[in-house]
Amino acid sequence: MADYTFYTNPMSRGQIARWALHEAGADYQQVLVDWQDKGALLRVNPMGKVPTLVHHDGGHDHVVTEAAAICHYLAEMSATELLPRDHEKADYFRWLFFAAGPLEQAVVAKSMGWEVPGDRGGMVGFGSLERTVDALDGWLQEHAFVCGDRFTMADVYVGSQVGWGLAFGSLPRRPAFEAYDKRLDERAARRAGRAIDDELIAEAQAKA
Amino acid sequence: MADYTFYTNPMSRGQIARWALHEAGADYQQVLVDWQDKGALLRVNPMGKVPTLVHHDGGHDHVVTEAAAICHYLAEMSATELLPRDHEKADYFRWLFFAAGPLEQAVVAKSMGWEVPGDRGGMVGFGSLERTVDALDGWLQEHAFVCGDRFTMADVYVGSQVGWGLAFGSLPRRPAFEAYDKRLDERAARRAGRAIDDELIAEAQAKA
Repeated sequence: MADYTFYTNPMSRGQIARWALHEAGADYQQVLVDWQDKGALLRVNPMGKVPTLVHHDGGHDHVVTEAAAICHYLAEMSATELLPRDHEKADYFRWLFFAAGPLEQAVVAKSMGWEVPGDRGGMVGFGSLERTVDALDGWLQEHAFVCGDRFTMADVYVGSQVGWGLAFGSLPRRPAFEAYDKRLDERAARRAGRAIDDELIAEAQAKA
Repeated sequence: MADYTFYTNPMSRGQIARWALHEAGADYQQVLVDWQDKGALLRVNPMGKVPTLVHHDGGHDHVVTEAAAICHYLAEMSATELLPRDHEKADYFRWLFFAAGPLEQAVVAKSMGWEVPGDRGGMVGFGSLERTVDALDGWLQEHAFVCGDRFTMADVYVGSQVGWGLAFGSLPRRPAFEAYDKRLDERAARRAGRAIDDELIAEAQAKA
């Protein structure tokens, strides 16, 4: 049995987790989840969301959900060099949670057409999409990666959010975002993960 | 100079970070931020959001934003017993990111009156408030804390979301939520932090 069972769908945030699995060099078996019949997935994650990762370790099945948690968990388990060093921890956790919280929220609100009334920006954690985008843009204008000059697992998650936002138009095409996305394309693990998902998508489309 | 500078406002998510500071036994100096004049805060965090934590360490000012990141960072820096052990890491990071992502999003969407169209639940990470609430409720029916039988820093963040939701009616009054909130009230650090914020709120109201 592989160390990890990876429940995914190629057209989902599962792409983020697959990149992380390849960065970590993890031994995993994939289970493709059909939106209409979630089957086995519901037994490990009643919410039925992908990606869901199950780590078979020490006689126990550890379930991890949430793409950002899966990225960080894989670094904790098997990729010490992708974890932050002590002096990098502030940046690493700050931007990992920023991308999983305010940035994700702002992008979703925009794509759903949800407007934040002017007087309630403080109540909504992201304030506004523009302020949120400016914050990340400002950081990436000054730093090559989340932790400065070195790639870490936080870049898998933050970089996926940026790459997704550029591909689907939910983030503006700022030069710092495009340069960061291009830098991340140099990661062999990103290209390897993407090739698998692209092939699965092509297969599904050929059948449809 | 104290180890940490803590930018906060007593009527904000800064309450979460203060609880974490007290759990970690951190040496901190607070800077109260006025919504109308954010002054010094904008120099360390251009978004002007509270809580913002600055860790003065090794001749460098490390800035941490996002309440969940601040909680975890403080555990990393000074509270080993509040960090997850290896076999607790899946639960710890899963629920920390669940509360910072889908749960926060679902609660905000509900309080803003935003509706997710039936066919777009997959696109929005939380799916629906009900499914999100059910997931956490299910976990807390079976486990005393995020990591099972032991309090960790993840409980500061998840517990604050639950406590806040119960106090403001943005979460339903499920028995498992109320029992969890009551268990967390046994933490001396929660009570100490709350006493400080309550006094600051009373002072501000007396002046207004």
